[in-house]
Amino acid sequence: MQTLQEVLKETPVTGHAVGVGKEMYALAEELYPLCRSITGAGTRRTLEIIKRHIPLVISKIPSGTKVFDWEVPKEWNIRDAYVLGLQGQKVIDFQKSNLHVVNYSSPVHKKMPLQELRQHIHTLPEYPDWIPYRTTYYKEDWGFCMSHRQLQGLEEGTYDVYIDSSLENGYLTFGELLVKGKQKEEVLISTHICHPSLCNDNLSGISMVTFLAKHLIERKNRYSYRFLFIPGTIGAITWLSINELKVGRIRHGLIAALLGDAGPFTYKRSRRGDAEIDQVVQYVLERNDKRNKVIDFVPYGYDERQFCSPGFDMPVGCLTRTPYGEYPEYHTSADNLEFISAHSLEGSFEVYSEIIDVLESNRKYVNLLPKCEPQLGKRGLYDTMGGNNDAHKFQLALLWVLNMSEGEHSLLDIARRSAIDFETLAEAASQLEKRELIKARGKKRDQ
Amino acid sequence: MQTLQEVLKETPVTGHAVGVGKEMYALAEELYPLCRSITGAGTRRTLEIIKRHIPLVISKIPSGTKVFDWEVPKEWNIRDAYVLGLQGQKVIDFQKSNLHVVNYSSPVHKKMPLQELRQHIHTLPEYPDWIPYRTTYYKEDWGFCMSHRQLQGLEEGTYDVYIDSSLENGYLTFGELLVKGKQKEEVLISTHICHPSLCNDNLSGISMVTFLAKHLIERKNRYSYRFLFIPGTIGAITWLSINELKVGRIRHGLIAALLGDAGPFTYKRSRRGDAEIDQVVQYVLERNDKRNKVIDFVPYGYDERQFCSPGFDMPVGCLTRTPYGEYPEYHTSADNLEFISAHSLEGSFEVYSEIIDVLESNRKYVNLLPKCEPQLGKRGLYDTMGGNNDAHKFQLALLWVLNMSEGEHSLLDIARRSAIDFETLAEAASQLEKRELIKARGKKRDQ
Amino acid sequence: MQTLQEVLKETPVTGHAVGVGKEMYALAEELYPLCRSITGAGTRRTLEIIKRHIPLVISKIPSGTKVFDWEVPKEWNIRDAYVLGLQGQKVIDFQKSNLHVVNYSSPVHKKMPLQELRQHIHTLPEYPDWIPYRTTYYKEDWGFCMSHRQLQGLEEGTYDVYIDSSLENGYLTFGELLVKGKQKEEVLISTHICHPSLCNDNLSGISMVTFLAKHLIERKNRYSYRFLFIPGTIGAITWLSINELKVGRIRHGLIAALLGDAGPFTYKRSRRGDAEIDQVVQYVLERNDKRNKVIDFVPYGYDERQFCSPGFDMPVGCLTRTPYGEYPEYHTSADNLEFISAHSLEGSFEVYSEIIDVLESNRKYVNLLPKCEPQLGKRGLYDTMGGNNDAHKFQLALLWVLNMSEGEHSLLDIARRSAIDFETLAEAASQLEKRELIKARGKKRDQ
Repeated sequence: MQTLQEVLKETPVTGHAVGVGKEMYALAEELYPLCRSITGAGTRRTLEIIKRHIPLVISKIPSGTKVFDWEVPKEWNIRDAYVLGLQGQKVIDFQKSNLHVVNYSSPVHKKMPLQELRQHIHTLPEYPDWIPYRTTYYKEDWGFCMSHRQLQGLEEGTYDVYIDSSLENGYLTFGELLVKGKQKEEVLISTHICHPSLCNDNLSGISMVTFLAKHLIERKNRYSYRFLFIPGTIGAITWLSINELKVGRIRHGLIAALLGDAGPFTYKRSRRGDAEIDQVVQYVLERNDKRNKVIDFVPYGYDERQFCSPGFDMPVGCLTRTPYGEYPEYHTSADNLEFISAHSLEGSFEVYSEIIDVLESNRKYVNLLPKCEPQLGKRGLYDTMGGNNDAHKFQLALLWVLNMSEGEHSLLDIARRSAIDFETLAEAASQLEKRELIKARGKKRDQ
Repeated sequence: MQTLQEVLKETPVTGHAVGVGKEMYALAEELYPLCRSITGAGTRRTLEIIKRHIPLVISKIPSGTKVFDWEVPKEWNIRDAYVLGLQGQKVIDFQKSNLHVVNYSSPVHKKMPLQELRQHIHTLPEYPDWIPYRTTYYKEDWGFCMSHRQLQGLEEGTYDVYIDSSLENGYLTFGELLVKGKQKEEVLISTHICHPSLCNDNLSGISMVTFLAKHLIERKNRYSYRFLFIPGTIGAITWLSINELKVGRIRHGLIAALLGDAGPFTYKRSRRGDAEIDQVVQYVLERNDKRNKVIDFVPYGYDERQFCSPGFDMPVGCLTRTPYGEYPEYHTSADNLEFISAHSLEGSFEVYSEIIDVLESNRKYVNLLPKCEPQLGKRGLYDTMGGNNDAHKFQLALLWVLNMSEGEHSLLDIARRSAIDFETLAEAASQLEKRELIKARGKKRDQ
Repeated sequence: MQTLQEVLKETPVTGHAVGVGKEMYALAEELYPLCRSITGAGTRRTLEIIKRHIPLVISKIPSGTKVFDWEVPKEWNIRDAYVLGLQGQKVIDFQKSNLHVVNYSSPVHKKMPLQELRQHIHTLPEYPDWIPYRTTYYKEDWGFCMSHRQLQGLEEGTYDVYIDSSLENGYLTFGELLVKGKQKEEVLISTHICHPSLCNDNLSGISMVTFLAKHLIERKNRYSYRFLFIPGTIGAITWLSINELKVGRIRHGLIAALLGDAGPFTYKRSRRGDAEIDQVVQYVLERNDKRNKVIDFVPYGYDERQFCSPGFDMPVGCLTRTPYGEYPEYHTSADNLEFISAHSLEGSFEVYSEIIDVLESNRKYVNLLPKCEPQLGKRGLYDTMGGNNDAHKFQLALLWVLNMSEGEHSLLDIARRSAIDFETLAEAASQLEKRELIKARGKKRDQ
């Protein structure tokens, strides 16, 4: 298995110069050293840094709180950890990489022979220079991760093992931001924030979602947008437990992660499979790059597992670049700042923006003069000269919108049926609406 | 782009000798010189000639009548038109081809330099010997059409331009014929009559529909058949506006046009996409010629645009040979009497007849002894000897009709499912009905 | 056309040593000499032999009884038949093969020239050494069947023709066995018993169904199983006529026949096409052998014709090896004890058993904690170590069952969607049910 960067060429970026891409990359750089987990100081610090960019609301849920079938765990904090070798030298040092300690390790301080220590050490024999990433959230245990090459260099003898961590009652912390639009109906964008020094998973998601939120704050939107920065699994379960009665407002949702690598996009459909978000993402991905893929829902992966559990069954899909587990750097020290790029982050930002733009305009219309065609010529909408190819395409767009507007077909349905691009149809619909030939379904006066 | 006749071989005609084909061609020849338009004397004269073959009812709707979003335009008539050259010679002469004048041109009589005249002249640089066909129905204007070669031969200087036309209050005229059948439910066959000296578009449609009507008058039919000879667009809108409350009777419909060229057939489905007419036409076309095509509805083309507007959404498709715009002779002087043939007209007549024959027999039946098979042997319907292949096929047809007759499947559904031809199934149904083993759904005593 | 055995390789048998296969073959051997028909002593004797293996209930329906559109025919019995040649030698002898007499032949005893006799003789010129099988159930007639080679050897002259048969009021006899399960809902397995010395059609079906019944008697089942041993067509019609009000209990059904040859399986779907039995058989066949085929319902074949008549429309398919008429030995003396094998019978038994196993477990479940995932770890269902591939697969199975359990998807639906094998999902469902995380839909306490 080659590394992803060896295999794939760069995804072309369609848009403007690498501006927001650089900002996203800089945020990832700033967050990289912090030791995040599903609780604790590193995660809190991460949220505070994000808050410098967007007006995040930070919530604290006490340990022990019952959330559906689960409960909020004790808070984990770690100050230092190392293993001292035979000559007192640090053979493993948490200060060099927070991946060296199994995340959520209990405190430990004792001497032990190498043979015993080995039981607590994780390596990747296939990639002997990389440190793996391991966790033990729901089973009290401790351990170290290191490169296989380094493990092989350890001599037999007694080692001094030290983890200065704590597992105590505290809080689960998460960040949330609601950007209000004309409608109360919400679009949910959620990203997980529980991984320590790993870049694609999950700093790329954190950065992209932060700047996407910033972008939407700066403009008027039809939908309201709810952004979640939550620890994986337990964060989603906690949020859903608190907000159970409000989730009906969420009309579309995306789980954002793995957005900084060089691969094409993969969209995993919602459990419903044909939700509007599924159709919109598929449309945008297909026209942007033939290498992009759309796959069916499976009940494992990221927090779509919770949002798409049968009791919620929300229209929430998951949009990543290369899916988790499909590149060797995944969950290792090689998922570092070199593995992601400003260029790729920018491309991800653009695709998410484009999806949102289509969602915003994807209405269903009702033809107000449905019997025969209206006379477009007398309204200046019909080119009597002919010949102009763009004008011809626009006239077809007008006819398609008029013909398919009985309140059942969205503009995206019409785009798929007619093979006319969404934006031309949206412009046609806008022109027809201005002339009171069609009316958006369910649209109130101020939208 | 080659001409269609160069590209395509003749469509094979399955039927009898070229008899009705010659009659259809002769009618096209007779109508060819007339200068038709959406209103006026040429169109009225056309209807009168058709009336010699079938008892057409001719309606006159006054200019200014409101028809949905439109109004009936002023009547256009033209007596003569020409352009005189520097030596007084006619460089363009309406008497030689009525295509020379842009259809619906306002009257004009003045001298002008070539430079000004050019603004009003249309040619086809790609086909320098052909005269294009242009119209200006809904914008007052005037113009001439000519071959590009002739335009290039005009010298600079002053030309005397003359169009002796009139645009005055008058009538929109159309022809209609209802051939009553056993049922009040109607099959609509509509063709446009507004094109001047152009043969495939639309004399082929006019001729074929005339003789199809004549054919149906001469026999007993299950359905009633309504034939429309109307100017394109405004004619359909006018007819629908007048008959809004009656269109519910129309169970199946076809727009007939472009039926004289040598190409295979193309059927454009109704907006519904799966109406019975769509299924029947597809079935007949598929088995007649592999080159025939069936395409989805698009909201431009001929009068299916109006019949399939969302406020009507009628089960009306469009059956042509080579579709409009897909052959270079389309809307040019090359769409002349040599472009169409008696042979092709006859083939079109046969396909339309076959479609009607299938429609007439395509019933749904109810099995009157639905529990287990009835004993066919004691009714003389089961060949106890075996061996005869046709007898075997007929017995399968009996079993298929019995098994699928719970009132939901038409004979065409059974034909598709069983791969037994429609006619054998119709004969099987007839035999079973005679023996009171099945009953046609919704059939009254006298049908 | 080659014989089937020349063309096909043996179907691989997945299971244990040839044990039940030998028993099934032995039963076929014992039944082979009997002259069965749709009524009469041979058929009664057959049922009595089956009764030695399973507690069959034998029913007798009098001749003349009205059964839907039919009536039970006179009982046919035959003691002897022959044709004496010119020197008094037996040129045809019923004692050598009961196929020599057309089944249901009326009694006859007279001398006649070869020319007249020929009118009553059936041969197979294509397979000159084989005797064909012919019947004349519903038309009083008589005849002989012989090899074409032997017919060609007959000299001109007078022959003495003798058939000692009787057609008298009597009974139609059939066997039935209900193996009660936890539920009253039934699975129907029906086989025809009316063919004389022919092995694949129908001794293979009789043997396989007998031992399948024996197998199910010996264990606890969820469903009740109803086994029918009936003469073809008239037997099914008679049984349905008597049991019309009870057929609603039958949830799944299979017609069993042609199960001893070496070919792969062909399943003909029920008329419904997507009944649970159709899905289950397709699933089992697809994973057992790529050569297996599934075809749509057609209204001829075996007794599915009656069970799937529109007035019943039962979920009954037909599962054979090589379909009737698709091998040359079909309905000839070459369908003998060498044409079938213990090996093939055993393979058929295993496929039927596997289908029943899937049916028995194919429930729909309701997730009792549908909001977010339940915490599997605290219930010992989540492998915290990772790495074990089987453990991983099982965890995916748990997640799939939880996610798809809203009462609408069967385990088979989940198997198809997830590509996880049915048995793993059934085990996952069982584990989840034990821990009260899911509940089978419609399951009562004692099931």
